[in-house]
Amino acid sequence: MSTTSTSGGTQNQRDPWHVIARRKQDQRSRLVPKEWLIPRAKLEEYNLGSPRANVTDVPVTCGILTPRELEITGDHDAVSLLDALRRGPDDKGYTATEVVTAFCKRAAIAQQVTNCLTEIMFASAIERARDLEAARASAPSSTPLPPLWGLPISLKDCFQIPGVDSTTGLIHFAGNPSTTYSALPKLLLDLGAVFYCKTNVPQTMMTADTDNNVFGRTLNPHNARLTAGGSSGGEGALVAMRGSVLGIGTDVAGSIRIPAHCCGVYGFKPSERIVPFAGQRNPTVPGHAGILPVAGPLATSMRSCELLMKTVMTHDPWKVDVNCLHVPWRGLETPPRAAAGLKVGVVQDEGLLTPTPPIRRALAEATEKLRVAGVELVHVELPNVMRDIGTSWTSYSLEGCKTVRGHLSAADEPLVESVKRIGLMSMPSKSLDDLFAWTVAREQAETAYRDMWLENRLDAILGPLAPHTAPPIDSWSSVALALWNLVDYPSCIIPVGKVDETSDVVDQAAKYGEDDEKLYSMFTGPEDYANAPTALQLVGMKQEDERLLLMAGIVDDILHSR
Amino acid sequence: MSTTSTSGGTQNQRDPWHVIARRKQDQRSRLVPKEWLIPRAKLEEYNLGSPRANVTDVPVTCGILTPRELEITGDHDAVSLLDALRRGPDDKGYTATEVVTAFCKRAAIAQQVTNCLTEIMFASAIERARDLEAARASAPSSTPLPPLWGLPISLKDCFQIPGVDSTTGLIHFAGNPSTTYSALPKLLLDLGAVFYCKTNVPQTMMTADTDNNVFGRTLNPHNARLTAGGSSGGEGALVAMRGSVLGIGTDVAGSIRIPAHCCGVYGFKPSERIVPFAGQRNPTVPGHAGILPVAGPLATSMRSCELLMKTVMTHDPWKVDVNCLHVPWRGLETPPRAAAGLKVGVVQDEGLLTPTPPIRRALAEATEKLRVAGVELVHVELPNVMRDIGTSWTSYSLEGCKTVRGHLSAADEPLVESVKRIGLMSMPSKSLDDLFAWTVAREQAETAYRDMWLENRLDAILGPLAPHTAPPIDSWSSVALALWNLVDYPSCIIPVGKVDETSDVVDQAAKYGEDDEKLYSMFTGPEDYANAPTALQLVGMKQEDERLLLMAGIVDDILHSR
Repeated sequence: MSTTSTSGGTQNQRDPWHVIARRKQDQRSRLVPKEWLIPRAKLEEYNLGSPRANVTDVPVTCGILTPRELEITGDHDAVSLLDALRRGPDDKGYTATEVVTAFCKRAAIAQQVTNCLTEIMFASAIERARDLEAARASAPSSTPLPPLWGLPISLKDCFQIPGVDSTTGLIHFAGNPSTTYSALPKLLLDLGAVFYCKTNVPQTMMTADTDNNVFGRTLNPHNARLTAGGSSGGEGALVAMRGSVLGIGTDVAGSIRIPAHCCGVYGFKPSERIVPFAGQRNPTVPGHAGILPVAGPLATSMRSCELLMKTVMTHDPWKVDVNCLHVPWRGLETPPRAAAGLKVGVVQDEGLLTPTPPIRRALAEATEKLRVAGVELVHVELPNVMRDIGTSWTSYSLEGCKTVRGHLSAADEPLVESVKRIGLMSMPSKSLDDLFAWTVAREQAETAYRDMWLENRLDAILGPLAPHTAPPIDSWSSVALALWNLVDYPSCIIPVGKVDETSDVVDQAAKYGEDDEKLYSMFTGPEDYANAPTALQLVGMKQEDERLLLMAGIVDDILHSR
Repeated sequence: MSTTSTSGGTQNQRDPWHVIARRKQDQRSRLVPKEWLIPRAKLEEYNLGSPRANVTDVPVTCGILTPRELEITGDHDAVSLLDALRRGPDDKGYTATEVVTAFCKRAAIAQQVTNCLTEIMFASAIERARDLEAARASAPSSTPLPPLWGLPISLKDCFQIPGVDSTTGLIHFAGNPSTTYSALPKLLLDLGAVFYCKTNVPQTMMTADTDNNVFGRTLNPHNARLTAGGSSGGEGALVAMRGSVLGIGTDVAGSIRIPAHCCGVYGFKPSERIVPFAGQRNPTVPGHAGILPVAGPLATSMRSCELLMKTVMTHDPWKVDVNCLHVPWRGLETPPRAAAGLKVGVVQDEGLLTPTPPIRRALAEATEKLRVAGVELVHVELPNVMRDIGTSWTSYSLEGCKTVRGHLSAADEPLVESVKRIGLMSMPSKSLDDLFAWTVAREQAETAYRDMWLENRLDAILGPLAPHTAPPIDSWSSVALALWNLVDYPSCIIPVGKVDETSDVVDQAAKYGEDDEKLYSMFTGPEDYANAPTALQLVGMKQEDERLLLMAGIVDDILHSR
C-alpha cells in the first residue's frame, strides 16, 4: 500500500485500530535507511528498558554520525547553523545537503530511542537540500539567499505538508495524506527552510503526555520514567536529542512550554495571532472561539526562538493567514547595561501548589543571579487564580469536545490513560450566551493582570512553569500555566539545569493542603528524577513578543553566566 | 429634579415614555444660556420648517458669535486650533477658555437648528478650560503641554462621562447618570481634551437615521428633507455646523461613515481594537461576539482624523482598554512625489445598486484628478458581495437583539420608523455552533479580500460609500458598506463636493434590476437634493490604519487641488 494512498480512510474504516496503527508504524520504520539503524548489540548495551534510561548521549556514542555530523548537530544552534550554511563549505561552513543529512540521521537515532517522530521525510528533505544548492550555484552571486536557506526545521504533527499524513495521533486520520500546506510551513518553506520530519503528540492533543494509539508514547530522553510532556512532546524530545535545533509546536494551555520544561529545551509561546496558525489539523471545530492556540518554536537556544519569531514577524504573516495581526517587528535593541534597567516580577507559585525542591532551588538560584546582575526584582502574586483557571477550562470545553470525540469514535479506538485522566471529554458544551459571559470573564482577567503589570512597572514576570520537573508519565496535573493563555501574554521556557542529587532532597514543605501534599509527595527524591531538567518561565506583556524576546535574551545570558 | 439624580430610573418606571422624554428635553434646553438662544424673529427668518432648509450659515448670520468666535470655530481644524492653543494669546493664538466657549456657543446654535445634541456640558467645559489655563500659568514654563491641551472634543452619546446620562436615545436610561468614564474619553481627558457636549443617535443605535423617542430627530444641516445619517448622526450634523472640529463616533456597520457621508464631513473608521472602545453604553450584551464596533473620529479635515488616531495610537491604548491591540504608530512618512507611486483600486459599485448621478460624477471627477496626479488606478470588483452581506447581518443578530429589546420594553416605548424598517429586531438569535460557522465565513471573506489586495498590489481602494448622497429621512437601505466592517479594513470618508444643479440630472441608468431601480429612482433631481454633500470612501488594509491615513492625506490633497 502506498503511503500517499487516498484510500487509506476507507481501509481504516475496515481494519481494527491496532491493525491500522501497526501498518502506520511499519511504514514509518521503512523510511529510516538501514544504515542509520542502531545495531541490536548497541541497543542492548544502552539498556533502554531500564526505568530511568538517559539516552541523550546515544547520538554521540552509537557510531552512526560522522564527527562532522556530530559537529553540525551538536555544536550549533539555528543561528550559527544558518551562518555556516550562508558561508558554505568554501568558507568553513556547510552545504545544505550535509546539514540536512546530519539532522535526518540524528532525528532517526532520536526516533529509535525516544519514539519522537510521526512522519519521516528524510528523502524529500535531502532532495530539497540538493535543489537549494543547485539553485544557489546557478544564480548570480549577488542573489540574496532567503533568510532560512537550508535550515532543517521539524514540525509538530498537526502541521500539514502535502503527501504526508497529519494524524495527530488519531487512528481516523491514518493513511489520509494532506493535500495542502498549513500557513506557517508554507511561509517557512518560501523562506528557504527544509522539512524533514514531523513529531509526536498526545491523542486529542489535549494532554501533557505524548502518547497515542497510532505511534505510542514518546519518551523523555533524560529519564524514561518521566513524561516528555505534551502536547508538543515529540518536538521536546527531538530537540533535547539535538535531532532538531528548531522545531515548531503549538500551545493553547501549555503545549509548547510543558515539553520544553520537561525536556530541558527552550520554548516560546507567542501571543495569539502573531504566528500563522491556519491550515492545521485541529482537535476542534473550525472557527472555534475562546482562547486561541498559537504556534511557536522549541529550540536549543533562546536566540533560535528569536530567529524564528523575527523571521515570521518581518515577513507579513497576514499574507498567509488572515488571522495574523499586523504587529510589526520593530527592531528593538538591547540597551547597554540592560540588566540594571530591568524590573522583573517574581511569582513563587500561584497559591495552589508548592514548588518541589529542584524547582524551588532553580528559582532561588536564578533570582540571586539576576539580583547580582542588577535586575530589580519584586514579588508579585497572581490575582483570582482559581476563578481564572476555571475560565480557561470553560474555553477548552466550549464545543464539548464534539469534534475530537467524533474522530475517536469513527475509528473505534480506546482512550489513552492521560486523556482519561484529564476529564475534558466529559465537560458539557456551552451556549452562545455562555460564550458572551466567558468573553467578559476573560476581559476581567486581562484587566487584573494589566493592572498588576502597570502598577509594578514590570518588564517581565519570572516563575516556575509548574511546581515540579517532568513528573512520572501520565501524572501531570498542574494547570495554572494556562493562565498565560487566558490573558494572552507571551511566555517562554528557559532551561536552567538539572535535578541535583545533593541539594534536591525530599522534604515536607507543601503548604496548600491535601491536593498540594499529594502532588508534592510525587517528588520521591533526586534518584528517581535523575537528569530531569529544571527550567523557569519568563512572561511578557501581550503582543509585546519582540520585547519579551529581548528580555529573555538578557535574562538567559545572566542565568547561564558563571 | 436634579439632572444627576440616581432615582431617575425609578421615576422613569413610573412615568409614560413621552413624559420622560419631555423632562429630558426640558433639562437639556435649560443648559443653554439664554443669551445663546437664537431670537424668535431670526428663527422665523431662517424658515426652518421649509422642506429643504439649509442651516449651515446660521452660526455666521445669527449674530450670537463674535467675529473672533467665528474665526476660532470657522477658520480652524483641530490641528491648527491645537497649535493656536499651544501658542496662546501672547503669540497670536487663543486661550483655552475662549476656544471652548466659542465651540459651546456654536454647538448651542447647531442644536437649535439641527437637534444634534443629547447632553450639554458647557458649564463644566468652560470651568475645565479655566483650570487648564490656571495649571499652565502656575507650572514651570518648561513643562510640556499634553498633546490635546484645551481642545474641545464632542462625543457620541454612548460614551460615558460621570454625572451625565448616556441614554443612547433609550427612554429606559434617562435620568441615570454615568459614574465612570468610558476608556477613550478617559484617555483623551488625560491628554488635555475638553468635553462639552454629547451627540444624538438613533433609537437602538442600529439604523442610519438619527431619531429616537428621547431627543427626537437630528436634521441634516444642508437640507432638512434628507437624513443626517446614523448612528453617529449627531456628530455628523454638529461637525458640519462647525459646532465641533473633532468628534468621536462609533461604527459597526457604517455608523461613522454614513453621517460623515450625509453631512459632508471627514470620518475615519479604524480597524477593530485600535481605538479604545471599552466602557460604552452598548445596545448589545457585554462580551458580544462577531464584528466588533469601533470608535473613530468625525472632523472637518483629514489631518484632524489623523491627529486623533496618532494621539491615541502613540499613547498605549491597551493601558485603558485591554482589548486594544499593541499595534504601534510607526511614524511613516509621505514619500516625495507620493502620488506617482500609489496604486488605487476603484470599486464603481458592489454589483447591487447603481450609483446615482451625483455620486457617479463625484467618482468620475475624483478618478480623473488622481489619474492626472499620477496615481495608478485599477478597476476592482468585490468578491461574494451578497454572501458576505449576509455574513455581516448574521453577526448583528447573534443575540437576537435581546438586550436592546429588553431596554425598549422596560420603558414601554414605541419603535421609531427607521428601527421598524431595518428588520434587525426580528432576526432570530444564533447558537454557538452558528458562531463557529460564522467565524469561518468571516475568515473566508477576509481571505478573498486579502487575495484581491495582494494580487492587485493595492495601496488603497476608492469608491462610493453608497449609491446616493444623503437620502430622504428614514429611507437609507444600502448595506454593502458593512463589508468593510466584516473584513475589518479601516476606511474613511472624504467629502468632495455637493449635488450640482446642472450636471446631476435625473436619468434611468439603474442596471441591477427591480430593487436597484426603486432605490435609484429616489434621486428625483438636484432640486430635491439641493446642497447635499457628495463624498467618497477610501479603504486601507486591516490594521494598517496609519498607512491608510497617509494615503488618505495624499488622496485628499489631490481631490481638493484645483
